[in-house]
Amino acid sequence: MAFPHTAAVIGLGLIGGSLAFRLRAIGVRVIGIDVDPNTLAAARTADAIDDGSDSLGAAAAADLVIVATPVDRVAQTAIAVGRELRPGTVLTDVASVKAPVVSAVEPGLPAGVLFVGGHPIAGSEGRGFAAADPSLLDGRPFVLTPTPRTAPDAVARMRVVVARLGMRPVLLDPAQHDELVAQISHVPYLISVALRRAAAGDAQAIAGRSFADMTRIARSPTAMWAAICRENRAPILRALASFETELARLRGALETGRIVDTLPVDDADAAYTGLPMREGR
Amino acid sequence: MAFPHTAAVIGLGLIGGSLAFRLRAIGVRVIGIDVDPNTLAAARTADAIDDGSDSLGAAAAADLVIVATPVDRVAQTAIAVGRELRPGTVLTDVASVKAPVVSAVEPGLPAGVLFVGGHPIAGSEGRGFAAADPSLLDGRPFVLTPTPRTAPDAVARMRVVVARLGMRPVLLDPAQHDELVAQISHVPYLISVALRRAAAGDAQAIAGRSFADMTRIARSPTAMWAAICRENRAPILRALASFETELARLRGALETGRIVDTLPVDDADAAYTGLPMREGR
Repeated sequence: MAFPHTAAVIGLGLIGGSLAFRLRAIGVRVIGIDVDPNTLAAARTADAIDDGSDSLGAAAAADLVIVATPVDRVAQTAIAVGRELRPGTVLTDVASVKAPVVSAVEPGLPAGVLFVGGHPIAGSEGRGFAAADPSLLDGRPFVLTPTPRTAPDAVARMRVVVARLGMRPVLLDPAQHDELVAQISHVPYLISVALRRAAAGDAQAIAGRSFADMTRIARSPTAMWAAICRENRAPILRALASFETELARLRGALETGRIVDTLPVDDADAAYTGLPMREGR
Repeated sequence: MAFPHTAAVIGLGLIGGSLAFRLRAIGVRVIGIDVDPNTLAAARTADAIDDGSDSLGAAAAADLVIVATPVDRVAQTAIAVGRELRPGTVLTDVASVKAPVVSAVEPGLPAGVLFVGGHPIAGSEGRGFAAADPSLLDGRPFVLTPTPRTAPDAVARMRVVVARLGMRPVLLDPAQHDELVAQISHVPYLISVALRRAAAGDAQAIAGRSFADMTRIARSPTAMWAAICRENRAPILRALASFETELARLRGALETGRIVDTLPVDDADAAYTGLPMREGR
């Protein structure tokens, strides 16, 4: 029988909802599980799920279970749902911080549940099921973070699922994952917040596309980011220090009038600068 | 007679080319002036200009002259072309730094040339005429920076031109302009460069949309940015200090485990965090 036959998606937010849409589109039966009756109703109306429930027990019918709750609830939810699952069920999650989640979940699961940590690197500044959009997944990395305790079959099956979702499987050690996402996601979020706070209101009133691009992520849910910051504190502080060092180098070059030396001119730039205009007619 | 009848655009790069396209589209005759014969040929082929020349003297036929060269050549070009212009000609520019340009140009022009500094806040990470696109101008601010020396008629006429270009006229003092663009454009550029440098290659390989958004501007021409940094050094250093202060506040909150206090939870976030899942069936 093709795997997965039935997927349970726990938490129908931006990512869970997007995964539910895509799983249904590739012929998987989807059970949506969410605490919010309005979210379940919206997911049913949008045909994102076949069945909805507010109870983790509904996941027992699935051969693939994806925990897509807020990051600070992933570990407890994965352990709780693990008690409901049949041996051989594949269990993964979408938390953007992996080492603390994986190390909490692995010892809490019954033997036979095939867990591997996951992180689909996709999303937008939107929030909740209303912002779910399966096209956000297209071609994006879906990181899997096996450990020595991970059943090889969990990874093999998840690789197939990821490819069927239209995403790219990337295997990383959980701690390595956390260092990398601190650099490309968590620190950029903090920069985005600081940049928005530092710019005066009358500056923002004339801001162009680059400012909008660089502060968009600051509008995403602060509760989610506060949880991420708590869970991935040490890697974020390391990545932040690297960024601050690079920025201080640029500031130093600006202060000493040597900025051009730290912004090397490439061939296209040489053409850009051009020659002085010819004067006269 | 409607103003302008004939516009000369000096420098057919991303901004000059976009303005040329839009001016022609609204029925203005456009003389394109550029030192690069390939750029002139491309602008002719694309129907961005009616006539092309490599000589500033060609601007003499225009009643509106826009200097759109690289920022560090704007003042010398404006002064040089000023000698070619008839009294009553409106002269402006597109430099993203205004106080040094305006203070250099004003005393260098013959009486009768109606100069007001300008800065259309539009663009992309592209470069040169190939990246010109008049839709980049739509609804964007076009800052005008009159001084006590500016002829009121220069401002009045430029307001009309800006509105016909589909842009929003915004009047600012040159020094005030430079402080604001340092906050919303120049410092974001430096941040973008530092962020890209601080992220490891294997981090960038799994980066998502927020990282792409935040580092896009780092790909724009470094020669242009080096010139902007030289011209607007003091305002950039002030804006950079404000940003570094905000970022240090976030880092401090992260270090002391109080990040949630500096990322205030709004109503939508409260809903987002949700309740624990119900266990059992």
